[in-house]
Amino acid sequence: MPELRKDPIIGRWVIVATERAKKPDHYLDLPQETSPESFCPFCDGNESSTPPEIYALRPKHTHANKPGWDLRVVPSIAPFLRIEGDLDRRGKGLYDLMNGVGAHEIVIETNKHIANMADLEESQIAEVITCYIDRMLDLEKDQRFKYVLTFKNYGRSAGGSKYAHSRSQLIATPVNPKRVKEELVGSRIYYDYHERCVFCDLIRQELDSKDRLILDLDGFIAIAPFASRFPFEIWILPKKHTCDFTRLDMPSRLELANIMKKVLMKLKVGLSDPPYNYVLHTAPFRRQKLGYWKSIDHDYHWHIEIMPRLTRLAGFEWGTGFYICPLPPEEAARFLREIKV
Amino acid sequence: MPELRKDPIIGRWVIVATERAKKPDHYLDLPQETSPESFCPFCDGNESSTPPEIYALRPKHTHANKPGWDLRVVPSIAPFLRIEGDLDRRGKGLYDLMNGVGAHEIVIETNKHIANMADLEESQIAEVITCYIDRMLDLEKDQRFKYVLTFKNYGRSAGGSKYAHSRSQLIATPVNPKRVKEELVGSRIYYDYHERCVFCDLIRQELDSKDRLILDLDGFIAIAPFASRFPFEIWILPKKHTCDFTRLDMPSRLELANIMKKVLMKLKVGLSDPPYNYVLHTAPFRRQKLGYWKSIDHDYHWHIEIMPRLTRLAGFEWGTGFYICPLPPEEAARFLREIKV
Repeated sequence: MPELRKDPIIGRWVIVATERAKKPDHYLDLPQETSPESFCPFCDGNESSTPPEIYALRPKHTHANKPGWDLRVVPSIAPFLRIEGDLDRRGKGLYDLMNGVGAHEIVIETNKHIANMADLEESQIAEVITCYIDRMLDLEKDQRFKYVLTFKNYGRSAGGSKYAHSRSQLIATPVNPKRVKEELVGSRIYYDYHERCVFCDLIRQELDSKDRLILDLDGFIAIAPFASRFPFEIWILPKKHTCDFTRLDMPSRLELANIMKKVLMKLKVGLSDPPYNYVLHTAPFRRQKLGYWKSIDHDYHWHIEIMPRLTRLAGFEWGTGFYICPLPPEEAARFLREIKV
Repeated sequence: MPELRKDPIIGRWVIVATERAKKPDHYLDLPQETSPESFCPFCDGNESSTPPEIYALRPKHTHANKPGWDLRVVPSIAPFLRIEGDLDRRGKGLYDLMNGVGAHEIVIETNKHIANMADLEESQIAEVITCYIDRMLDLEKDQRFKYVLTFKNYGRSAGGSKYAHSRSQLIATPVNPKRVKEELVGSRIYYDYHERCVFCDLIRQELDSKDRLILDLDGFIAIAPFASRFPFEIWILPKKHTCDFTRLDMPSRLELANIMKKVLMKLKVGLSDPPYNYVLHTAPFRRQKLGYWKSIDHDYHWHIEIMPRLTRLAGFEWGTGFYICPLPPEEAARFLREIKV
């Protein structure tokens, strides 16, 4: 069973994969760059190479775990957390830990061997969004979980695997991730003072100044954030205030798919198909009506953070929480605005 | 002038290098792997290739900026922060920023073209430690600064430059880094409850259990931390309680050099000379006797965190603060204990 361990000083939870652990000498040879694989377990027809699907969008006449689907969700073959068992929170001297209970699911976004989400149709991206929502709502029913992390690793240096087939991941966790907590606390403090949502204010300011605006499309904007950590960091935010991604209605899903497609295509065209990560930050599960969560409907605002992986300045940042961004976001935004897609 | 910008939601300060910024199209081609350079600006005899030294350990008969030195400190040729000017804290709508005032210094640890600190003599590492202390005490005199970040990037994928010559960096900042603040807050909370230092308790527990102990040498221990973020993450801690690295006496500097040399050599021998970062976490400058800092003498404990760069699982972690460590620290410690150096 993997373990969730808490740093005793700053309280950060870490998944320690005691079970799928590779032997220490595995780390002797650093992973190689992508070698093109002739076989892809995520392509149409290779359904038997993945665990059985737990969700799929497929035409009525097709059968589960058989070809002909549009999108499939399968459990990770090497899950960071295990679905079975109790949390069993406990101490070990001054340390806190619990069992690594959770869910780890892989969203296979297309049955074709397409690597970059930018190359999917808008309608396919809208299906991915719908899938995220459906899976999150389902995982929320499990009383052991507090949060679902939804993210994408595109490209080897962004943590992607050797199989270059477009997919995302969902990890349901029994703790709230530190970054999300920090955002909840920070936006709560802002709300307490101003009685306004900090994200709503930020959106208004970015629409006024236009300095960091990349796209303004229907109900969404894409910006280079004022305190960007990385060159070409991009946030996508809904203009309408809402803390909870899962409440997104159908027309908004299509609008989000539209802006995501355009933003990812700008990255691809403008920066020669760079590796990137994105993470979806939304409110924790509703049942946690405590402390900082009590006014979450007013003070939090879901969004997507996209982080192209273009620089190596990482170890220092990990150790200090202090980021150095060599490219002003105003220049990044100007560059991306001008890329035609 | 570079800018220090504050994330309006979580309050993280970021250095935005508006001045030394590369053009956006610089990022079109990702940096190449190390190409061996025939010329190294950091070697003995090439003093004119660096800015004039601001500190040096050199025999009496040698002259500043001339050959024959043991260790030199020079300003960074591409500083993230500028030494001249006022902070000028100000707002811009809802955003906070200040001028990127600070110091950015390069410690050239040897006059020989040696890449890895592991290959320096212990006495040289002790000189590096003395240099850190001397520079920190000097930078503390500047009333604009609150902290000095001391760190090392070894190897290209740890953010090292193309010149593989062993050196460290010091960055004096007008703000306290987020990670250090979090440690101060966390250890304060622990102290308030237990009236003991969390690091002291941790050291005692690690010495008792020995599960994660890598080395126990004189006044220092090296451990794989309980909630390791990365495979082979290592912390070096002084057994004797002290919050302030700059108070380290001469005998302790030699002991620290001894354990650092052994730990870095174990990494080099055991893991085929991996890239790594280390950061020194010590108390902020003393003049800040406010809030969480008021009992810092009792509740904080300086230490060094070493992070080998063996995995790529980074973007997700950046976006969520949620780490997944594929190797249990107990196994990492056992492996490193058995490496003979």
